[in-house]
Amino acid sequence: MKVIMQRHNPAPRPMPDTALLARFAAIVGPAHAIAEPTEQAPYLREWRDLWHGKTPLVLRPGSTAEVAAIMELAHETGTAIVPQGGNTGLVGGQIPFGHEILLSLGRLARIRAIDPDGNTITVEAGVPLAKVQEAAASLDRLYPLSLASQGSCQIGGNLSTNAGGVAVLAYGNARDSVLGLEVVLSDGRVWEGLRALRKDNTGYDLKSLFLGSEGTLGIITAAVLKLFPRPRETTVAFAGLASLEAVRTLFERMRAASGPMLTAFEMMPERAMEFLTRHVPDARDPLSRRHAWYALIELSGHQGEGETRALVERILGGAIEGGIVADAAIAETLQQARALWHLRESLPDTQRHEGGSIKHDVSVPVARLPELIERGNILIEAMMPGARPLPFGHFGDGNLHYNVSQPPGMAKARFLAEWAPVNARIHALVLELGGSISAEHGVGRLKREEIARIKSPTEMELMRSLKAALDPQGILNPGKVL
Amino acid sequence: MKVIMQRHNPAPRPMPDTALLARFAAIVGPAHAIAEPTEQAPYLREWRDLWHGKTPLVLRPGSTAEVAAIMELAHETGTAIVPQGGNTGLVGGQIPFGHEILLSLGRLARIRAIDPDGNTITVEAGVPLAKVQEAAASLDRLYPLSLASQGSCQIGGNLSTNAGGVAVLAYGNARDSVLGLEVVLSDGRVWEGLRALRKDNTGYDLKSLFLGSEGTLGIITAAVLKLFPRPRETTVAFAGLASLEAVRTLFERMRAASGPMLTAFEMMPERAMEFLTRHVPDARDPLSRRHAWYALIELSGHQGEGETRALVERILGGAIEGGIVADAAIAETLQQARALWHLRESLPDTQRHEGGSIKHDVSVPVARLPELIERGNILIEAMMPGARPLPFGHFGDGNLHYNVSQPPGMAKARFLAEWAPVNARIHALVLELGGSISAEHGVGRLKREEIARIKSPTEMELMRSLKAALDPQGILNPGKVL
Repeated sequence: MKVIMQRHNPAPRPMPDTALLARFAAIVGPAHAIAEPTEQAPYLREWRDLWHGKTPLVLRPGSTAEVAAIMELAHETGTAIVPQGGNTGLVGGQIPFGHEILLSLGRLARIRAIDPDGNTITVEAGVPLAKVQEAAASLDRLYPLSLASQGSCQIGGNLSTNAGGVAVLAYGNARDSVLGLEVVLSDGRVWEGLRALRKDNTGYDLKSLFLGSEGTLGIITAAVLKLFPRPRETTVAFAGLASLEAVRTLFERMRAASGPMLTAFEMMPERAMEFLTRHVPDARDPLSRRHAWYALIELSGHQGEGETRALVERILGGAIEGGIVADAAIAETLQQARALWHLRESLPDTQRHEGGSIKHDVSVPVARLPELIERGNILIEAMMPGARPLPFGHFGDGNLHYNVSQPPGMAKARFLAEWAPVNARIHALVLELGGSISAEHGVGRLKREEIARIKSPTEMELMRSLKAALDPQGILNPGKVL
Repeated sequence: MKVIMQRHNPAPRPMPDTALLARFAAIVGPAHAIAEPTEQAPYLREWRDLWHGKTPLVLRPGSTAEVAAIMELAHETGTAIVPQGGNTGLVGGQIPFGHEILLSLGRLARIRAIDPDGNTITVEAGVPLAKVQEAAASLDRLYPLSLASQGSCQIGGNLSTNAGGVAVLAYGNARDSVLGLEVVLSDGRVWEGLRALRKDNTGYDLKSLFLGSEGTLGIITAAVLKLFPRPRETTVAFAGLASLEAVRTLFERMRAASGPMLTAFEMMPERAMEFLTRHVPDARDPLSRRHAWYALIELSGHQGEGETRALVERILGGAIEGGIVADAAIAETLQQARALWHLRESLPDTQRHEGGSIKHDVSVPVARLPELIERGNILIEAMMPGARPLPFGHFGDGNLHYNVSQPPGMAKARFLAEWAPVNARIHALVLELGGSISAEHGVGRLKREEIARIKSPTEMELMRSLKAALDPQGILNPGKVL
């Protein structure tokens, strides 16, 4: 085993000189090499304004061959490269911080093939997620990955960060939707792994190396994705519950009775309804009074004979009789279903209207979610009396966005100054419960120091061995993940 | 990129001397170190009698710590180690061929934990697959991996070979059922990756490296596996069809109408029924006359209100009316359902009663299965008139056991002498159709030379880089996979 005891921290590199920049620009042509700061701005600022990047050059290659030529030159000259998709990442993974050239994949935007019989689609990295979904739907198929940013994020970014979202419960993470990949390696070689096979046991699982490695081991340029039969019907319901234990019991009953038909089980607290009705003009509380907890439930059926509605009615009916659910609404129309999902989807944005918000993207084994929330709330109240926890998220995956809004009236800056200590306490609790401090957003730059502290030395050594084997010069997205 | 241009073929090592063997034996104690050839025999012969191994010593460690101590000593002394589970592998991956010490995981047989609320089970490598299934069932949960050899194979072997089986269509391969792993590395360090999380994006997907790498990158000693809600009912049906296109159409209709409720779709040709009724005493043809093709269909439901039977009847009824299915039988009782599955499960064994059989474990994109079979049959007839193809398998996964029985009356040895050229022709066709030459059985020793020929140089270099990073001395299962 190659043990690299020091942090894999590549030595600071000199800024590429003008002649070298010109060689890079020549690969993509002058129209697609951006040196002008105002034109660069959309690539360097992320949407929440938390990260501000800096780069000598933005390159917009138009083909895998151009990406390969860029990496070949980068390898030859030791130039650092930051790959970027739709620039919607939340941990700074897509942002260069000085000397790195930014490589934007947005022009690799072809759908290369779609095979409804084989249930696969072959897409280039720059195709927006929503376009993948639409292409599948146009042939009566489903590509299940679904995120708030799906209109602007790109599939290459989704795959390289192993994105999560609201359909993980039934379909898994982005990783699970991939059959094959095309990847440009750090020295410009292209790994042609675009297989469309459900089963292939001829060697190591190379594609998993690149999925979720945030552009630090290779640059994904295309992928073969699994498609699924499109459900004929869905039923969406919204339940009010008195306790977290009741939420957990309802989830278990739903899952036992509907198996893979249960395609979403999201939860939010009473405070979420307060924020939603206050800040989202068209948000309407579907229940007649407030409840401590809410569950948004979606069932999908392939028969199209009303089976999902009958099942939801039966389970919720039994849960109301049994005192588990206090009240519930079932969408009668597509419009009502959309209105229920709109509540869930609008929730993240409401937090900025309530002052500072300290965020966590964590997961624990599903059965430990109630304990995480209860103990988390006690910790927060002890640290900052009056701070308002807003624990919401993908209950069925054990994935909680345990966010905390500031106490009303406190200065925002004073509150946000507590970000690191609050993170430290919540993350310590998460680890005690056997959880993860980054369930779906990744590591990027934001959590790089933290994972190095919390992972075992053996695990960090394994990761560094892989980095050294695949990117020995450290030119792929340096300073991210590791 | 570290490019290793030569085949990664570790230099032949000297046989470990008596003193060294004694040091290894001392780790596990004399009762669990087997040097006596007759006692070694069960570990060295595989059940089809194709591989005969040789080892100076069989070690049966009783704990992860003992496995770690063995690897530490192996690392210190450059001793080669072959890990073995239930010795049911079909490609020789578990067989030592001389100087290697055989490390049998069978005594690591504890179920460490089972969490029905979190839907996880934590098992040691040596637990037989059937015991994992039983432990899950005892708490009303399902562990879906299901294979012919499930009574004797062990979960560690299933995971390290990424086993397939009959439930892949709905639940995926062995790989897909894993949340976390404990792995002993080549130098004796232990990677503690036993996480029970549905979502965890804190770095590289290390577990995927070990899953399917056949013990060449590390030794899996324990795993956290996903459990699923247990279906309340299943319906099994058996359909006779006139053409492969009809089989494909039926599969598509079944999948569209039942989505994830379709848990198996197996196919076999008329010749299979001939072999079954001839050689399996209790096999009964459920249909009144013979058909060119048969499909075995299983639907699973979680409501338990007869929904699977109603659905199967509706789809098969429509398919019979539409001329797609010629005849069909639906099991009325559990016993009848078992009798239908018995046909499928007995099929592999029937082949040995028909003389020599040349085997292929291949996959193609599902939509290309008919073309593979039709063109394969033409190739075989041209090479060896009278040879009898028996293409059967997991239609829904595109995974075909394209086996060929000898022409009646030919000398078995003369037929089997054609194994390599027949493989070469069928594999060439599979590759032309974008397929894999080892869909579920792995590479082991059997297909090691072949994958080196057919994979791209870049892919082989990537695999060798990983091997060099994780097992730089080449002591883990040398001469397998790579």
